[in-house]
Amino acid sequence: MSMGAPLVALLTDFGTRDWYAAVLKAVVLCRCPGARFIDITHEVPPQDTVAGAFILAAAVPWFPRGTVFLAVVDPGVGSRRGIVAAKADHRYVVGPDNGLLTLTLQRAKRFTAVRLTNPRYWRTPVSATFQARDIMAPVAAFLASGGALTGLGAVLSHLSPLGLPSVRQAGSTLRGQVVHIDAFGNLLTNLPASSLTPPRGSRGVAVRYKRRAVRVVSSYAAGGPSELVAVAGSLGLVELALRNGSAAWTFNAARGDEVEVRQA
Amino acid sequence: MSMGAPLVALLTDFGTRDWYAAVLKAVVLCRCPGARFIDITHEVPPQDTVAGAFILAAAVPWFPRGTVFLAVVDPGVGSRRGIVAAKADHRYVVGPDNGLLTLTLQRAKRFTAVRLTNPRYWRTPVSATFQARDIMAPVAAFLASGGALTGLGAVLSHLSPLGLPSVRQAGSTLRGQVVHIDAFGNLLTNLPASSLTPPRGSRGVAVRYKRRAVRVVSSYAAGGPSELVAVAGSLGLVELALRNGSAAWTFNAARGDEVEVRQA
Amino acid sequence: MSMGAPLVALLTDFGTRDWYAAVLKAVVLCRCPGARFIDITHEVPPQDTVAGAFILAAAVPWFPRGTVFLAVVDPGVGSRRGIVAAKADHRYVVGPDNGLLTLTLQRAKRFTAVRLTNPRYWRTPVSATFQARDIMAPVAAFLASGGALTGLGAVLSHLSPLGLPSVRQAGSTLRGQVVHIDAFGNLLTNLPASSLTPPRGSRGVAVRYKRRAVRVVSSYAAGGPSELVAVAGSLGLVELALRNGSAAWTFNAARGDEVEVRQA
Repeated sequence: MSMGAPLVALLTDFGTRDWYAAVLKAVVLCRCPGARFIDITHEVPPQDTVAGAFILAAAVPWFPRGTVFLAVVDPGVGSRRGIVAAKADHRYVVGPDNGLLTLTLQRAKRFTAVRLTNPRYWRTPVSATFQARDIMAPVAAFLASGGALTGLGAVLSHLSPLGLPSVRQAGSTLRGQVVHIDAFGNLLTNLPASSLTPPRGSRGVAVRYKRRAVRVVSSYAAGGPSELVAVAGSLGLVELALRNGSAAWTFNAARGDEVEVRQA
Repeated sequence: MSMGAPLVALLTDFGTRDWYAAVLKAVVLCRCPGARFIDITHEVPPQDTVAGAFILAAAVPWFPRGTVFLAVVDPGVGSRRGIVAAKADHRYVVGPDNGLLTLTLQRAKRFTAVRLTNPRYWRTPVSATFQARDIMAPVAAFLASGGALTGLGAVLSHLSPLGLPSVRQAGSTLRGQVVHIDAFGNLLTNLPASSLTPPRGSRGVAVRYKRRAVRVVSSYAAGGPSELVAVAGSLGLVELALRNGSAAWTFNAARGDEVEVRQA
Repeated sequence: MSMGAPLVALLTDFGTRDWYAAVLKAVVLCRCPGARFIDITHEVPPQDTVAGAFILAAAVPWFPRGTVFLAVVDPGVGSRRGIVAAKADHRYVVGPDNGLLTLTLQRAKRFTAVRLTNPRYWRTPVSATFQARDIMAPVAAFLASGGALTGLGAVLSHLSPLGLPSVRQAGSTLRGQVVHIDAFGNLLTNLPASSLTPPRGSRGVAVRYKRRAVRVVSSYAAGGPSELVAVAGSLGLVELALRNGSAAWTFNAARGDEVEVRQA
């Protein structure tokens, strides 16, 4: 391949003490001998699909075209939850259909997703406990080898949503929550970024967090020193941030903190 | 190589805070520039050859033919313990002769092992404290480059056993122990899998763990919900498991717990 | 490349829970698709440039010619501290000019360093918070692809020193400190290795640590059993060591412990 060998990037909650992540790679290598691997992380908090979804969505856009992402945070392994492979902006993602891939795919300009149903591409027998090894890794290897989505299963019209808490609306006020704190200490909320755009004819938008007025700006850098600001983040969600600092540390933030957007 | 670049898989107790694992790879690369690496784990509990042996044996069979495994859990470094390279079912393992490789080799259909005695293949000078860098990594690089076992040293007729506690026999009863808890929470014992096969003319086999009768089944999946079962595991040892669950958590298991097999 | 694909080795304080290290690799891959990566460690204690400098200097000499080291422990990110790329003994290092690279470069037989000022080689826009991604990784990719230092910026005549505590001199006595404890438990000091060479006509050199006389020897192996010895270490500094043991454990050593060299 002129762009270098096939690239498979992994994100799991397997930790690094056991042999699981290595076995995923071994299975990929048996079917795609030239594959190279990048570990995004194997330390997603166990079964925390929300944290996994944010970390995956943050990493994916930096990778070259053609990269295959194998993402496994799968509390429902062995249950009826589906397994998905998708092509999104010239990259591929494979993982359980439990919301883990949702932010990544929503953020793509376009994507096609299929539900994996064709066992021809799997290892057999498929275990009930390690479908990442038996279904997801073989399919990732197939895609990394240049295989097409077609044939893996039927196109999915609807992906499982990420299990974010819902936003409550009361009149012109939206109340959401901090749903993820990223490694820079930025606070990601479940409020849609569009809520920061004042409706026509309105006087503007007021954001509040911990009894504090938060100025809406167009980028992190527009904040003053020590000033908490709200921006439309790259995942399509409202983010609160401190320029050159950690909003999380400074404001003692936690997942679940309430954030309010009022259209004035 | 038509199957992709040479593949070296590493298992150590070096941890990931220091430069040791990286230096092993660097030494391999100086002698086998095209080598690729897979980290199985560097977090084997320090000097715990039993845990290392189980993790290695669990990982090895998933890797492609030709993979070279460099396994270092080596409390006896600098002592007279030997160092071994072996070919087993078209894969290679290099490591100290202290039991670390034993389960992996026993599990192979066939293997040939040599004791490393020919310094021509080593770095010089050989340090007393870091023979993984000076002896094992260069030999792994040599094998990864397509070199042959012959010439590295004399064939070994006897490998050091893994330091498992011994099984006690009283009449028709075998008493063993839980010797490893795997990442699925399965309990691996030191009892030979063959002990689960009832002798001719006997009425069967009774397994007990924590005053509980354990049903013998042919595979994990044959267990009922919440039912602890005993199976002949893939390492040739009796394993206790819970279908779709962690036997370790559910039964508060620990290494050293007694397990009994009685032939009725 | 006849020596295999370009090799990029990483050392950071990013940890492995987040997506940062993966994004560095992704940015390198977008500009140098054939790059391979070796992680030295991502667990340098946060912002500890001294620990990072020692780990980097310990690892670098083992790597093949042509390796590019991307080293990021950067408490001053976004400030006026410079960013450096250097060629040293046929290898390359890229990182902040805050002392992190200093031991590595001092140890080289020869090196050339430039301050990165030419934005043509960077990602745009350059963020204030993640210059490793926007400046250092693209430059590392450029060097890994065979690019030359020339053009990246002006040659630096002076590198920032590593922030080691200073050595105090009183008459013929030098008082220094333990500045790093390596993974073997050796104690690295800030005393120059040259201080162990007795001046002409002197009777010798006396080293003391914790009220204990320490014998000066030419290599670790020259120590007796349980004997603490002083050697001229490979980084050009005095090191205290115990043959086949951990001086740190045995003597309960800590960073900051005083070490004295007296020329008798």
